[in-house]
Amino acid sequence: MTQRFSKPNNFADQTVSLAHGNGGRFMRELIEQIFVRHLQNDLLDTNADAAFIPLADNLTELVVTTDGFTVEPLEFPGGDIGSLAVHGTVNDLAVSGATPLYLTLNTFIEEGLELKVLERVVQSMALACKACNVKIVAGDTKVLRRGQGGGIYFATTGIGQRISKKRLGLKQIQIGDLIILSGSVGDHGTAVMLAREQFGLSGTLKSDAASVLPITQALQDLDGLRFMRDPTRGGVATIVHEIAQVIKCSVRLYEQTIPVNEQVKVVCDLLGYDPLYMACEGRVLAVIAPEFAAQAVNKLQQLGYFESAIVGRIEEGRAQAFLETELGGERILQELEADSLPRIC
Amino acid sequence: MTQRFSKPNNFADQTVSLAHGNGGRFMRELIEQIFVRHLQNDLLDTNADAAFIPLADNLTELVVTTDGFTVEPLEFPGGDIGSLAVHGTVNDLAVSGATPLYLTLNTFIEEGLELKVLERVVQSMALACKACNVKIVAGDTKVLRRGQGGGIYFATTGIGQRISKKRLGLKQIQIGDLIILSGSVGDHGTAVMLAREQFGLSGTLKSDAASVLPITQALQDLDGLRFMRDPTRGGVATIVHEIAQVIKCSVRLYEQTIPVNEQVKVVCDLLGYDPLYMACEGRVLAVIAPEFAAQAVNKLQQLGYFESAIVGRIEEGRAQAFLETELGGERILQELEADSLPRIC
Repeated sequence: MTQRFSKPNNFADQTVSLAHGNGGRFMRELIEQIFVRHLQNDLLDTNADAAFIPLADNLTELVVTTDGFTVEPLEFPGGDIGSLAVHGTVNDLAVSGATPLYLTLNTFIEEGLELKVLERVVQSMALACKACNVKIVAGDTKVLRRGQGGGIYFATTGIGQRISKKRLGLKQIQIGDLIILSGSVGDHGTAVMLAREQFGLSGTLKSDAASVLPITQALQDLDGLRFMRDPTRGGVATIVHEIAQVIKCSVRLYEQTIPVNEQVKVVCDLLGYDPLYMACEGRVLAVIAPEFAAQAVNKLQQLGYFESAIVGRIEEGRAQAFLETELGGERILQELEADSLPRIC
Repeated sequence: MTQRFSKPNNFADQTVSLAHGNGGRFMRELIEQIFVRHLQNDLLDTNADAAFIPLADNLTELVVTTDGFTVEPLEFPGGDIGSLAVHGTVNDLAVSGATPLYLTLNTFIEEGLELKVLERVVQSMALACKACNVKIVAGDTKVLRRGQGGGIYFATTGIGQRISKKRLGLKQIQIGDLIILSGSVGDHGTAVMLAREQFGLSGTLKSDAASVLPITQALQDLDGLRFMRDPTRGGVATIVHEIAQVIKCSVRLYEQTIPVNEQVKVVCDLLGYDPLYMACEGRVLAVIAPEFAAQAVNKLQQLGYFESAIVGRIEEGRAQAFLETELGGERILQELEADSLPRIC
């Protein structure tokens, strides 16, 4: 890592663009070249959803994660920025094999925001905390001048304790493992986009925003479980691309078995988006040894996640992800680059 | 607490104003009526700088705090938003009697920010982490559309372990205790204001932004230490007002012994600000039993904090804070209300 960033950068007159925030290549480079380059240490792993930090007593291992929330509009079908700020961080702990316990909350409010909107959002946050059994233990509030904020931005940091006996992570993935998805892709991103009404489209689609704790708790004791992640910014395609790069393997997705909501399909077709790159906020992508994959899907379906399915496979080959289409062709899933859809989560 | 907020609020058409962010009355009410009302739990204490959270093993007690940073300009004489985001959160742990260990970092960047500015600020953050011996263990970055952010906003959450054997806090304060200050007041707020160049004033004043760890480490083993806090938003006046309200006592400050930098005095006089309400970012206000106060000041002076002094006293009487002026008069220090100085920290 050190060698990679040993040359000082010359950023000259470069500026930050929206693509630096979309979860794809530019964002990865920004994080590597500026944040990791200066802030790296033995506990910071930008390929993980959460950090595992040992405490002095050597008995307890904390799991820590953090996430910022900037979704626009603040309230959308199926959720709002308040519940999202709880679920997003709870989910990062959940997919890391941890029980979420505590949250801290940062609020940035724009001058002029209606107090009743703020209250609705905080109330929704409280309900989500209760449902996930987490407590907000510390908070801070800043007010931004009109025009310097987008209504509300939240940042939540989550602290949990590890429950999974084995460590999960990208590096546990092996050739031959199967990929399962707990539900349909792209509902959140598409629902938020529709809620903006900027495309002249509307629909009944709801965000999938929810806690994934029931899913991760069902999966985490299965033998053969290697890795879990919630596909948020950059969607499922971004995760499988990362798997391919880190494991140096091919990742094959089966278009035929990937659950996609009909409305998501139609809207994405119309606007030229690919559901595989759209954010989910209540789904889990898991990688599991082949002999346990059917059992995992079964377990999820029994819990009511009826769309859960085996959607792909880890294969030997070039480090790339591709989609086996319904017609039998293959399409490479490139790393996300430009994308004009900011403030989706 | 429950009773106080049992009546549902009707916020009708009220909106958030800049005064809701200044550390004074409106901010306290906003936090109580919206955040605490909905999110309250046994660990959340809005009168404390950090939360003490017990872990399952009952041996370890974590100290957790969080803070948002919106300072404008991003770089100012004596510091920048990067070092501030480390020091601010480190300081909240330090005054709580904890050793800071880990930070998480949320970054909200406005589209169009120059990458070289971002890098300078992150580099400064890295130096501050090194100096304070803390590691950033998790992070998240969001990009905001041009016009929806103020260059950079940071939020940092700090995790530490308690070192002070006794619990420090507002409720430990007793009648007769003395108040000490580790250095001059208002340097940060005034330096940032001057750096904006909006008042046609300039000067050589530097922010006092710094880690207060050397100060709190020197004080925390002194017998008789009751309470420490760093006077940020709302300044020294806001802390003494809070002491008066929580302890139901009078707090007397001595104008004669409060260290105020000459430039701060002049600028505040010109613009009609009171240094006692201006933010510091590297000072500690401590309350200590009278028989140990001189020893505490001595210790700080030996460490190079030459301006540290006994500046006030906790007295029986009405719950209010007042200033004994150099001319022998008395001036009540009201709770901060309107204040048009946002984005100072």
